[in-house]
Amino acid sequence: MRRTEADLDRVAETESIFALSNGWLGWRGNLDEGEPYGMPGSYLNGLHERHGIDYPEDGYAFPQHSDTVVSAPNAALIRLWVGDEPLDLRTGTVRHHERVLDLRAGLLERHTEWISPGGHGVRVRSTRLVSLARRPVAAVRWEVEPLDGPVQVRVCADLLANQRVPERADDPRAATVLEDPLVAEYRRADGADGVLVHRTEHSGQRVAVAVTHLVDAPDTTATDTDCAADRIRLTLSGPLHPGQRLRLVRFAGYECAPTGTPDQPATDAPDGTSGQPVAEAPDGSAEGGPGGSVQGRADRPAADVVPTPVELAGQAVTAAAEARSAGWDALVTEQRAAFAAAWTTADVVLDGDPELQQATRFALFHLLQAGRADGDRTIPAKGLTGNGYDGHVLWDTEGYVLPVLTYVAPAMARAALRWRHAHLTEARERAAELRLSGASFPWRTIGGRECSGYWPAGTAGLHLNADIADAVLRYVAATGDDGFLAGAGLELLVETARLWHGFGHWSDDGSFHLPGVTGPDEYSALVDDNVFTNLMARRNLRGAADAADAYPEQAARLGVAAAEVAGWRAAADAVHLPYDRKRGVHQQSAGFTGLPEWDFDGTDPEADYPLLLHFPYLELYRRQVVKQADLVLAMLRSPGDFTAEEKARNFAYYEARTVRDSSLSSPAQAVLAAEVGHLDLAYDHFAESVLQDLEDLGDKTGDGLHLAALAGAWIALVQGFGGMRDDRGELSFAPRLPGRLNRLAFSLLWHGQRLQVTVTPDEVRYELPDAGPETGVDLWHDGTRIRVTGGAPCVRPLPALPDPGPEPTAPPGRRPARRA
Amino acid sequence: MRRTEADLDRVAETESIFALSNGWLGWRGNLDEGEPYGMPGSYLNGLHERHGIDYPEDGYAFPQHSDTVVSAPNAALIRLWVGDEPLDLRTGTVRHHERVLDLRAGLLERHTEWISPGGHGVRVRSTRLVSLARRPVAAVRWEVEPLDGPVQVRVCADLLANQRVPERADDPRAATVLEDPLVAEYRRADGADGVLVHRTEHSGQRVAVAVTHLVDAPDTTATDTDCAADRIRLTLSGPLHPGQRLRLVRFAGYECAPTGTPDQPATDAPDGTSGQPVAEAPDGSAEGGPGGSVQGRADRPAADVVPTPVELAGQAVTAAAEARSAGWDALVTEQRAAFAAAWTTADVVLDGDPELQQATRFALFHLLQAGRADGDRTIPAKGLTGNGYDGHVLWDTEGYVLPVLTYVAPAMARAALRWRHAHLTEARERAAELRLSGASFPWRTIGGRECSGYWPAGTAGLHLNADIADAVLRYVAATGDDGFLAGAGLELLVETARLWHGFGHWSDDGSFHLPGVTGPDEYSALVDDNVFTNLMARRNLRGAADAADAYPEQAARLGVAAAEVAGWRAAADAVHLPYDRKRGVHQQSAGFTGLPEWDFDGTDPEADYPLLLHFPYLELYRRQVVKQADLVLAMLRSPGDFTAEEKARNFAYYEARTVRDSSLSSPAQAVLAAEVGHLDLAYDHFAESVLQDLEDLGDKTGDGLHLAALAGAWIALVQGFGGMRDDRGELSFAPRLPGRLNRLAFSLLWHGQRLQVTVTPDEVRYELPDAGPETGVDLWHDGTRIRVTGGAPCVRPLPALPDPGPEPTAPPGRRPARRA
Repeated sequence: MRRTEADLDRVAETESIFALSNGWLGWRGNLDEGEPYGMPGSYLNGLHERHGIDYPEDGYAFPQHSDTVVSAPNAALIRLWVGDEPLDLRTGTVRHHERVLDLRAGLLERHTEWISPGGHGVRVRSTRLVSLARRPVAAVRWEVEPLDGPVQVRVCADLLANQRVPERADDPRAATVLEDPLVAEYRRADGADGVLVHRTEHSGQRVAVAVTHLVDAPDTTATDTDCAADRIRLTLSGPLHPGQRLRLVRFAGYECAPTGTPDQPATDAPDGTSGQPVAEAPDGSAEGGPGGSVQGRADRPAADVVPTPVELAGQAVTAAAEARSAGWDALVTEQRAAFAAAWTTADVVLDGDPELQQATRFALFHLLQAGRADGDRTIPAKGLTGNGYDGHVLWDTEGYVLPVLTYVAPAMARAALRWRHAHLTEARERAAELRLSGASFPWRTIGGRECSGYWPAGTAGLHLNADIADAVLRYVAATGDDGFLAGAGLELLVETARLWHGFGHWSDDGSFHLPGVTGPDEYSALVDDNVFTNLMARRNLRGAADAADAYPEQAARLGVAAAEVAGWRAAADAVHLPYDRKRGVHQQSAGFTGLPEWDFDGTDPEADYPLLLHFPYLELYRRQVVKQADLVLAMLRSPGDFTAEEKARNFAYYEARTVRDSSLSSPAQAVLAAEVGHLDLAYDHFAESVLQDLEDLGDKTGDGLHLAALAGAWIALVQGFGGMRDDRGELSFAPRLPGRLNRLAFSLLWHGQRLQVTVTPDEVRYELPDAGPETGVDLWHDGTRIRVTGGAPCVRPLPALPDPGPEPTAPPGRRPARRA
Repeated sequence: MRRTEADLDRVAETESIFALSNGWLGWRGNLDEGEPYGMPGSYLNGLHERHGIDYPEDGYAFPQHSDTVVSAPNAALIRLWVGDEPLDLRTGTVRHHERVLDLRAGLLERHTEWISPGGHGVRVRSTRLVSLARRPVAAVRWEVEPLDGPVQVRVCADLLANQRVPERADDPRAATVLEDPLVAEYRRADGADGVLVHRTEHSGQRVAVAVTHLVDAPDTTATDTDCAADRIRLTLSGPLHPGQRLRLVRFAGYECAPTGTPDQPATDAPDGTSGQPVAEAPDGSAEGGPGGSVQGRADRPAADVVPTPVELAGQAVTAAAEARSAGWDALVTEQRAAFAAAWTTADVVLDGDPELQQATRFALFHLLQAGRADGDRTIPAKGLTGNGYDGHVLWDTEGYVLPVLTYVAPAMARAALRWRHAHLTEARERAAELRLSGASFPWRTIGGRECSGYWPAGTAGLHLNADIADAVLRYVAATGDDGFLAGAGLELLVETARLWHGFGHWSDDGSFHLPGVTGPDEYSALVDDNVFTNLMARRNLRGAADAADAYPEQAARLGVAAAEVAGWRAAADAVHLPYDRKRGVHQQSAGFTGLPEWDFDGTDPEADYPLLLHFPYLELYRRQVVKQADLVLAMLRSPGDFTAEEKARNFAYYEARTVRDSSLSSPAQAVLAAEVGHLDLAYDHFAESVLQDLEDLGDKTGDGLHLAALAGAWIALVQGFGGMRDDRGELSFAPRLPGRLNRLAFSLLWHGQRLQVTVTPDEVRYELPDAGPETGVDLWHDGTRIRVTGGAPCVRPLPALPDPGPEPTAPPGRRPARRA
């Protein structure tokens, strides 16, 4: 992935695209010298501040506080002065500038040749990594040399806290900016090295960042270190003659822990179940521990995991020092090895479309950066690539990202689900506050409490709870991790099933309804019987019932009795699905197909999108206009509830009304388009999803990447063209190869086995490349059960396509761009 | 109306109850000495400040500014020191204290005997008036005398701007408090008199207040005047011996005008119709003029109505000086005369229930204080009695207050409708912003722009537009004011009809629907086909069509063609009314009767009301729980659309689900209860409405009176027990006399004639007491057409009651208190 000086006007977008992360620590791809920037950012997963929020008209249970991500002290800053002139690519002459993100190795390389306004030329190279192998560690190797003649240089390597973040545009989706959110607690400098410790004022978190350096410079170079509350600066200055070089390797160690004194300590759990210990996984892995996850524990620290500022500083210094001892080359070698291992499972081969091949790998790279799965940790909607959505975790995680990670990095899926479990107390409290049963997870959060300030598209999106349950069920089915199911998984399933059972309503005709919720499509709100929600709730209820039956003892500890389980099953069996017989399509929600159509003739395709920035909710909600796949997503999640004919009719109906103003839309549209046989359209939807950020299709990439859309690329390929479905707890495939491709190959982990699927124009090849002949995986190919064993590829002909008929129309100007 | 020292712990409530106003200028009933207070307040109709509002998650067309009422400089403050001790009823000994509001004369009398902590006794008497005859004038006569022995007194009569207003409780219905909203522009003191001029910073308003005094005091009294930016203080000090008295009469003159430089000048109207001159009423009355209404012009001042600060000060000084020249006694005489005239039409006699007789007169008194109808001026929800709801105008005005004023003070109804018309430009702009047709009036406003910060219960309440149209039609029918109809009335009808026609949706079966609106019941939101809204929209469409046919030339100037009128009629004829055949009741909105019931068993009648402070909208919206009459109000507004059986069934069904968390609920419930024959229940609903503020039933009276509930008392009496209906442009009556009363008598103005209706246990008497035999009024008595002529009472037997069956149940604990 390469960007050059031509991309300098897209600096914020480039910073997101070049963001490095190991899932715990992230550095945006800011230029080493800090300027120009779109938005500086270095993030620790879960590090945030709480702040009060006001409403023009407040309401009961409107959240009174919100979390917003704050940058950790930035250790990636290496400023350069040539003479008296700062290196700034907006000044002087840029003779050459490129940055290359090495997707295979996880390294960001930079090469710049710059002539200062005063005529002095330098070459700057840097390589940056955020270590996949060492959670607290990031490092950068940076060097400068004269281009033509001698130069006087001054290099300032900063560790900078409370770096100014620009206010974002007037857009409801932008971030809250807090001023100086970090309070200095401790600092220490020791020669060229140093450490800063800060805490947040309200969220009860403490962060320590240590830097240590290796300097390789001419003897004429002077060194100075300055240490202030918010900045440690190492300054190297002196002349550089042709042939000479100044090289600096900086190793940074980050640590974060709760202070033990957040503003809002969690209240006691409202019922008797919360004190139950969670059954550990069979491998007995002790997760967390000292200096453990920032998340999931901040509000409820055990006494023994609250290091003092000095102790935390010591941990950060140790991490940095260990990295330095290992040396730069070792870090690079570790990084290559870690990524190589990850790519083995994750890579998807698209033979025939180099551009989208590259884009697909870019997408997967950012998913893989979720990285090491120690502790209870989740993945915010923007990952650690920017502060968009205030750094919040949304349903993107369980709805889009985990369905991929379950198959390419299942331990990370588990960590994310454990993170939800760690916040079950808050979810129970929220349900009690809402006067609902069970647990109600927050639509937006960092610290575990609801942060959504617009309840019709927040609190009312109860399907999130079923999305979490669905992710549990999928994870357990794909991994066989029964220990997880018996413990955290069961509790998540039970408490969400309780929510649905209490929320639902039995009508006179004996059917079970869920009135007054908001489904995935945010251009509708507070609807009755949203099909997606109802089907997901059904899955939730049945999954909880099955798990309770499978683990009766554990269920009993959660207070689950047989009658409760029977009630869940009865509700699940009676779930109502609104259907329009006249039109022969399902209704996204009750009455939907009778609503007025959107006035597409009066909507300017160039100027009026996204509609939410040009039309009031009053108009959006009451019309048949769909922001993002909703009924179509229901057909992906619950394919067995729709006949092939219904799928085709439903797809065509909703395709004509879906404007895709959300990056969450294309993946499901791609999958269903492929299923009903519109392969070109499916490919175009896939392209939109995978190019979401690389082409900044939503104009929001500068705030951070859309991880759900990137995950959607995999979903489009594997579930769309691979035809993979997993709703029945088994794998099934019905591959189709789009005309643009000669070959599509991908892998999935299934109960620890890597299943390789290769689709070519004539056949489908299933293999277990890492297994011996004694190992086998049962799956379905085009409706037929087959068993794939190690050592012997199982080859089947490519299934015949259904006759799809004419391609459905999209709203004017809203068909995804056609791939030539 | 009397309150004594026993009521000092209800000081804020008393201030609202004792508020004096002439509709343009209002003084809360604060104690003369200022302390203790619940909330100080002196208001000019329309005087407000604009301020920015923030949203946690902003949305398209969410208002970015709101108006909030600000107090005008307070000229009612007369502080007293006895020795060094300030008169404060919380200190010393209150030997006697009472205040009496003379409802007949419009005077607030006060008599206090107080012994200071140091043992010095004084008697203080005061009388206060806000002149109905002289719009800019308020006055107070105040005197102090020693009780037992000589005292040293210091009297400070203040004119005080930017008086501190306490922050209100954490309740979404409380007011925004701005600090020091008035900017001093000019001041002048001249002997004991003075004037202050201030302006608002953002709303572009200027206010001048002048005070002049008559002092009657012993020669030993020293006089001093101090004049600062925000305060003019006249100080009188000296000894008072037994038999001596210090008397001060203060005359205050208020003027207000636009500055010509508001922050947000109105943009050009989006279409060609806005520049059209409005046809004047046939009487050619020139409304407004120099120093004219604060409202309706603030944003669009003509050059010739922008007085300078000095000019405005001069107007205020003149008003005060003229009042002083007339003298205190003349002011009192004028006041008595003005109220006497108003009472002639307005009084309602309840023979048999002295308490509610008094309460009814209290309610009518506050409606009559709307007073002089010069200029374009409306009535905020709290009148000029407090800052609740930020001083906003809500649909309370057209929905509750104007249906009364139309019959007892029609000129004021006209002024309020002209005020709407004066803000038609903003309503057109708002509709364009919302991408709707015609005009969309603001749910909450002072200056004319939408100020609602929660759109599901604000912008979505489109019925407000039909309420305005309905008020136009009712006003014209009752007065025959064809000049108004041909001008402002037609334009209001046309633009609101355009809104409905554009907003509505034709379904396949040829019916016309209004999806996605919020009706009167705010415990439902964003519903389809709210019956109230649909019926009101139908009336709006037909009314506009009729008016356009009647005034084709004027309609043509508004761009109305025959096809448009035909479209309105077609839509009106096809309006859909959802009906539940199984239950035999109308659905408040589509699907309502299929929603889950409210869990009244799980709701604590003592602790859980109002529900909105204890349950989330998520729960309220999706259940069959009704905050306030909605379908029942529809049956009042549009009685011909329901059979008697439907009314009875509907009433019983909704009575059981209506919790009356809004003071707007009882009036309609009283009316329908009376119509279907449950007279005791009707009487209890009437009592709740009329006692809303006197007994502070909603715990919000301290913020100001609920004018709609007070108007609702008249509605309950005249439309409930009088059985008056006016939906067909004619008057009809079907009286019922509740068991508590021996006689009910009320008057209505109909085309300028006062119609007196007297209901006794056996008969109904219709009279035109002011008319000769040549004058007659046609009306309907119990379904029979009769003509009442001057000089000859028309007497009919009291109609027989239908057999009402058992009384409908109310939600547990929510039946209105039974009157013994």
